[in-house]
Amino acid sequence: VFLARLGLNSTYVTALPDHEIGQAAVDALRSHGVDTSRILRRGRRVGIYFTEAGASQRSAKVIYDREGSAVSQTQSGSFDWPDILKGAAWFHCSGITPALSDGAAAATAEAVRSAKRTGATVSLDLNYRKKLWSGEKARAVLTPLLQDVDIVFGNEEDAAEIFGISAPGSDAAAGRLDVDGYRQVAQEMRRRFNLNKVVLTLRESRSASVNAWSGCLFDGKEFLHSRTYEIQLVDRIGGGDALSAAFIFAALSGRDDRAALEFAAAASCLKQTIPGDFNLASREEIEALAAGPGSGRVQR
Amino acid sequence: VFLARLGLNSTYVTALPDHEIGQAAVDALRSHGVDTSRILRRGRRVGIYFTEAGASQRSAKVIYDREGSAVSQTQSGSFDWPDILKGAAWFHCSGITPALSDGAAAATAEAVRSAKRTGATVSLDLNYRKKLWSGEKARAVLTPLLQDVDIVFGNEEDAAEIFGISAPGSDAAAGRLDVDGYRQVAQEMRRRFNLNKVVLTLRESRSASVNAWSGCLFDGKEFLHSRTYEIQLVDRIGGGDALSAAFIFAALSGRDDRAALEFAAAASCLKQTIPGDFNLASREEIEALAAGPGSGRVQR
Amino acid sequence: VFLARLGLNSTYVTALPDHEIGQAAVDALRSHGVDTSRILRRGRRVGIYFTEAGASQRSAKVIYDREGSAVSQTQSGSFDWPDILKGAAWFHCSGITPALSDGAAAATAEAVRSAKRTGATVSLDLNYRKKLWSGEKARAVLTPLLQDVDIVFGNEEDAAEIFGISAPGSDAAAGRLDVDGYRQVAQEMRRRFNLNKVVLTLRESRSASVNAWSGCLFDGKEFLHSRTYEIQLVDRIGGGDALSAAFIFAALSGRDDRAALEFAAAASCLKQTIPGDFNLASREEIEALAAGPGSGRVQR
Amino acid sequence: VFLARLGLNSTYVTALPDHEIGQAAVDALRSHGVDTSRILRRGRRVGIYFTEAGASQRSAKVIYDREGSAVSQTQSGSFDWPDILKGAAWFHCSGITPALSDGAAAATAEAVRSAKRTGATVSLDLNYRKKLWSGEKARAVLTPLLQDVDIVFGNEEDAAEIFGISAPGSDAAAGRLDVDGYRQVAQEMRRRFNLNKVVLTLRESRSASVNAWSGCLFDGKEFLHSRTYEIQLVDRIGGGDALSAAFIFAALSGRDDRAALEFAAAASCLKQTIPGDFNLASREEIEALAAGPGSGRVQR
Amino acid sequence: VFLARLGLNSTYVTALPDHEIGQAAVDALRSHGVDTSRILRRGRRVGIYFTEAGASQRSAKVIYDREGSAVSQTQSGSFDWPDILKGAAWFHCSGITPALSDGAAAATAEAVRSAKRTGATVSLDLNYRKKLWSGEKARAVLTPLLQDVDIVFGNEEDAAEIFGISAPGSDAAAGRLDVDGYRQVAQEMRRRFNLNKVVLTLRESRSASVNAWSGCLFDGKEFLHSRTYEIQLVDRIGGGDALSAAFIFAALSGRDDRAALEFAAAASCLKQTIPGDFNLASREEIEALAAGPGSGRVQR
Amino acid sequence: VFLARLGLNSTYVTALPDHEIGQAAVDALRSHGVDTSRILRRGRRVGIYFTEAGASQRSAKVIYDREGSAVSQTQSGSFDWPDILKGAAWFHCSGITPALSDGAAAATAEAVRSAKRTGATVSLDLNYRKKLWSGEKARAVLTPLLQDVDIVFGNEEDAAEIFGISAPGSDAAAGRLDVDGYRQVAQEMRRRFNLNKVVLTLRESRSASVNAWSGCLFDGKEFLHSRTYEIQLVDRIGGGDALSAAFIFAALSGRDDRAALEFAAAASCLKQTIPGDFNLASREEIEALAAGPGSGRVQR
Repeated sequence: VFLARLGLNSTYVTALPDHEIGQAAVDALRSHGVDTSRILRRGRRVGIYFTEAGASQRSAKVIYDREGSAVSQTQSGSFDWPDILKGAAWFHCSGITPALSDGAAAATAEAVRSAKRTGATVSLDLNYRKKLWSGEKARAVLTPLLQDVDIVFGNEEDAAEIFGISAPGSDAAAGRLDVDGYRQVAQEMRRRFNLNKVVLTLRESRSASVNAWSGCLFDGKEFLHSRTYEIQLVDRIGGGDALSAAFIFAALSGRDDRAALEFAAAASCLKQTIPGDFNLASREEIEALAAGPGSGRVQR
Repeated sequence: VFLARLGLNSTYVTALPDHEIGQAAVDALRSHGVDTSRILRRGRRVGIYFTEAGASQRSAKVIYDREGSAVSQTQSGSFDWPDILKGAAWFHCSGITPALSDGAAAATAEAVRSAKRTGATVSLDLNYRKKLWSGEKARAVLTPLLQDVDIVFGNEEDAAEIFGISAPGSDAAAGRLDVDGYRQVAQEMRRRFNLNKVVLTLRESRSASVNAWSGCLFDGKEFLHSRTYEIQLVDRIGGGDALSAAFIFAALSGRDDRAALEFAAAASCLKQTIPGDFNLASREEIEALAAGPGSGRVQR
Repeated sequence: VFLARLGLNSTYVTALPDHEIGQAAVDALRSHGVDTSRILRRGRRVGIYFTEAGASQRSAKVIYDREGSAVSQTQSGSFDWPDILKGAAWFHCSGITPALSDGAAAATAEAVRSAKRTGATVSLDLNYRKKLWSGEKARAVLTPLLQDVDIVFGNEEDAAEIFGISAPGSDAAAGRLDVDGYRQVAQEMRRRFNLNKVVLTLRESRSASVNAWSGCLFDGKEFLHSRTYEIQLVDRIGGGDALSAAFIFAALSGRDDRAALEFAAAASCLKQTIPGDFNLASREEIEALAAGPGSGRVQR
Repeated sequence: VFLARLGLNSTYVTALPDHEIGQAAVDALRSHGVDTSRILRRGRRVGIYFTEAGASQRSAKVIYDREGSAVSQTQSGSFDWPDILKGAAWFHCSGITPALSDGAAAATAEAVRSAKRTGATVSLDLNYRKKLWSGEKARAVLTPLLQDVDIVFGNEEDAAEIFGISAPGSDAAAGRLDVDGYRQVAQEMRRRFNLNKVVLTLRESRSASVNAWSGCLFDGKEFLHSRTYEIQLVDRIGGGDALSAAFIFAALSGRDDRAALEFAAAASCLKQTIPGDFNLASREEIEALAAGPGSGRVQR
Repeated sequence: VFLARLGLNSTYVTALPDHEIGQAAVDALRSHGVDTSRILRRGRRVGIYFTEAGASQRSAKVIYDREGSAVSQTQSGSFDWPDILKGAAWFHCSGITPALSDGAAAATAEAVRSAKRTGATVSLDLNYRKKLWSGEKARAVLTPLLQDVDIVFGNEEDAAEIFGISAPGSDAAAGRLDVDGYRQVAQEMRRRFNLNKVVLTLRESRSASVNAWSGCLFDGKEFLHSRTYEIQLVDRIGGGDALSAAFIFAALSGRDDRAALEFAAAASCLKQTIPGDFNLASREEIEALAAGPGSGRVQR
Repeated sequence: VFLARLGLNSTYVTALPDHEIGQAAVDALRSHGVDTSRILRRGRRVGIYFTEAGASQRSAKVIYDREGSAVSQTQSGSFDWPDILKGAAWFHCSGITPALSDGAAAATAEAVRSAKRTGATVSLDLNYRKKLWSGEKARAVLTPLLQDVDIVFGNEEDAAEIFGISAPGSDAAAGRLDVDGYRQVAQEMRRRFNLNKVVLTLRESRSASVNAWSGCLFDGKEFLHSRTYEIQLVDRIGGGDALSAAFIFAALSGRDDRAALEFAAAASCLKQTIPGDFNLASREEIEALAAGPGSGRVQR
């Protein structure tokens, strides 16, 4: 959705039931300009989740309700990837999809392989969710898949829980992060999986209402760390997705890594001030934040 | 409600009209597992109050609308206390009830005496409300009643306005508190009324949006002061009730005073991040907060 | 609205269509006790604006939708000003009205002249809106009009964008203000337009969620700067209007400049903790804030 | 409210507490142009009622919650009636007010006597509510009061329950009405209390969703029966009040009884298609309904 | 829920996940006084359905979303039926439960057998849903189960689609029903499955907004047909359940078949005037409707 | 929107501002699959209207607020019609557009001429709105435009108010229609403007809650009258648009006039049972209604 809103031709590939609830999901995607023509219409339910927004000392909470969803019932062969990916410059997928079922994991692996062969840049957001699968299972599934991935997005927790790569000096639960430790995580991730780039998000949880947020990147040469935003959270869900999407947009627009990382950090900061999963911030707003003081002065 | 949610057999004794509005109140209690079988169904109205949530420099405000409520029309003899209290391990009441009418005050006194005789631990939350009665009236009513009370809950303002026991060094209106002063208040309260324990809450009002919050306890030997929580308030109403209930739960569960006080402080901190009067926090969430950094990291 | 709520006889002069939507606007004004008998009922639409509340780094945003509104179609001669102003002690107008159309500018100029002749104190809030007109146009329209104005309300941005009078050391966009610079702006404004008093608001935008807010005043002798309020914003729109109205009320009540300025600063601080354009704070609440710590302690 | 909306100078005399909830009631009245300057500000609560809208076979239901309301605490001497009524052409009161308390009954009696002496036309809507008082009590209170009343509004149920005057051939509970029986009720009411006019409403309850509705009038000479409206109810509460108000307006505007009755029937029909207690229908809409087919064709 | 509201000790036996969403379901049941202590807390999701209310010519629509629900994962042995049913006078189950999965069908069969052995009256509502299973599957599953059933509730469509027993002269789709045909269906159902009683509902769908509704019963001797209610529908879902529950309540209260059927018809009529699945009508309201004209006159 | 939902490639050509409100309108269109790529993004406001839903005797009401809208500021040359219409099989426009301004009328005329030249079928819905323009103005503008129109949609009121062609025997205001009269209107319209077909809607307004609805068609040979639907209205706005769109869809799908008319009547009946301007009914639902009894039986 965010990529489409930024003006890229964006296609969302998933499976949704052929009933009114599935159609409502399609309609929501269409309203933002996403190409929905490759969505498989089958199965009986749309996976959902319940979320309780946190505040102050009370954590946000997510309860997944994705058993038997149409996506979880996809498998190898469900999608005609070579046809879908024809002409695609970039393929991005989330680590949540392979967590849903073995079939969905197979479909994801197939997609990644196919995208790599097509010549698209392939990126994966690790998105580790311990309520969906164990770290061991995730490692077993994601390791072979990473062979065809160019860019990995993630955070320290993903790296630690799936691959046992921890950031010395950081304690995510306590909201303390150490940038040097993140550099080591990014380097080790890149080395181990022979990646082009590793992009990590740094979230310092002051409370469920206020977070510090930034991104860092290692491309084999430089380790870059973006500006840090102190965010009075409206809705933190979708922050990581916004960072990935904004980075992809910036990279495809020809910006260099530093500019892309700053654009991505600003974009994902704004997302967290907007209710809902979708980032509705415009390119102009993102660039204004990246370039300016971020003092939120009224525009009238 | 909170005690029932924590798993204790909890009975709420009050009076409510026998019409649909009274039943709606019963239903709300039942939904949380409270035993409502001892509620007297009579009278014509349910007492209500209007509240305006504060923000920043604007104070929260409460307008009571309890004239002629069913509870205010109870009196000595309205309840069969010996029967109601049979087998009860703890009896807790609020200082708001005797403020409603002379009849309600007589009914409360009768309950306290009866509970003491039954062998239950008896606790009272002073809950002084100057919009309901004067300090003089409160002192006259509560002093005899305190003879049968084991544990008093309250704050510095209650002690000062009702009993003239002030905390030197504190200025509640200005949001400045001095722990040493609270120690003196607790000691004096305990001594004067021959109490087993005195538990006080400390609220430093940085603004109507942010409060610092903790609890302290004096049991004749030790003066304990809990961890202080800086709370971005969602709904501060019910904070004191949550502390009392959590302390009762912890005490009945066999925790020592220090553990009970920390459990109570954490529980009542969480309450203030939840809209509505009821504390919906679970024991697990409370214990996680009491033991952890309180950084409000998402759970998914 | 705020002046009427504070107890002054207040008449709102504007134009509204004679249909149900126009009547709804009249009804909203009447509910607060505003005299609506001088409102011209004509034209086809009520000007509206859309506003998106900001949060954290995301700016609030205003989209005006006032083309063809009844007010924008007024002109010289639309109102019988001498009759309307009979007995008025004060006439206040906003710089937004002349921005709407040449006709509305002519009607405003006529009103100002007429009020001056009547002997009323005349005040103008500059209220510069760059989405409505350019600084050049504003200067051309407002300069002659200022000849009959006694008191100007505004901020540094108004002065800079319309008259090129900047406050050295301040950067409004970045949320940094320098009080000395404001003194120079106020002095220069007063000198250039031969004003009685200049009242400026100082908004330091920490973020779209938190602003520091104060007012300052120069009357030719003293430069006064009010207490500064750190506000957790609920709705910042209407802050400046609240300051003007409160100052007018205080001045008409016989308070001196210092007292009036502090009353105005406190009143407009409270406005920004209240949703909607109208300041619903009472005189008692304002005086309590101006005199007290502003710790937002509950009133019950 | 309805009289003010129709353009009459209308003053509402009641008692309301001097707090924010009382003020909200005042503001609601003011928004419709009612003169609220004679409202006594005292007491602690605003009387309210709960209502459940009916549908089909499920009856609407009203639960009164008026114990201890400010109005119920008024008494003889609470209001300076001669001053309030100075210049009044008409005084109207409801039979609900004297039902609230003996004091309110005394205040009502005093008002009626005073109005009669002033020379105003005096009307009373019987408004019998069996949840508030018994028929005997109502008869005892209302009988002396009727000596000074010119026009009585009511329905068959009021007449039967209070005065034992039943309409032969009608069964209100079953929704069957007989117009001839109503004539006899009106004649007997007029005779017994020496009234100028009796105006009765006829409600045939087909179901809680559909009612037939009309009015009839007896002035000693003619018995008039208005057109009957088959109404798909939106909110039936306030139907009788709307009829009274519309009749008063029409009478004061110089219409004859037939025209006034038809205007009143159409006005009160429209009320019942509008949610809320207030009749928001305009004079033009009422006249269009009274003159036209009532087919509800869109206006655009 | 309805049985508990009518005052019976009612236990709901089902399976719900041990997370917050499952608890919310428990709380909803508890608020109405249902005993929830026998609910199995396990599994990962709560089965839900989406429903679009119909209007006029537009049909209501139900989309089931029950794949993988906790109930669908129960099986033979999941519940300790002998213990659960100890002391139960009546056991009622729905034909929807066995439609959810083979395991749920086995659990239902086990429950029915166990209830029969305990000596409880056993009733089953056929509740055929063609979006959940085929008529053949339903027949295969329900036929053996019916051996231990005393009373069957259903409608003509259930009988026709599952057992091929049609009512001559009726066309449910077109909203035309023939009572004689229903008699034949009831007789044949009773004969074929050796039942004690068969209770059928008759719904004549005039439109999605207006239905005619009644019940009929055959007990081997008499064929009874209740009064028919013409209902302006608020929410038709739960009509059949309300009829079953009301019949069970009436039978357990010792009413004869005719009285029980009329009570059940009136109760289920009222349900369809109430939004939501639960019948909130009181016994008094039901009896008033069964005894009176059903004209929905206001109660105040 | 409806055509896109039925599966046709549909392009909406209009003008909308390039700000967030304009984008929200684009997003709403996109969500239903409409091609929005030809929408001109310019101007400052989106035309809106206020509507009050009617009920029973209270008419629905529309207040237009379209002054200065982006569409009203289009003119001849604003759109590159030949390019837009390339490959279009059908061009449909509304009589509301030319009513907005002379510029919009010129743009519409240009579009119609261009469409005719392209070889598309051209249809116009007369949509006369007396709050927007007079009948004389409408006649002057629409008469030349009709030279290039193939099919006209409208109702008796449109024909009478614009062209003075009345249906003898009908009284739309009173809700009485005479089909024979409609035949004459259709014949005269077709003859006078040399049209291919005339399609009229017949709305008998029983009340604002219940309408009878059908369509008729004259193609020079046959006069066809569809089935009449008695509709319990949910939202009557958009009924005419739904009929036009459904007819266009059916005609483009190769159905004959009778089938197309019945499809259109059923589709527009369903629209009026759905809140909002858009017809969300599916082809299957429409065909089921056209073929079935329309009894609105639940689907589950």
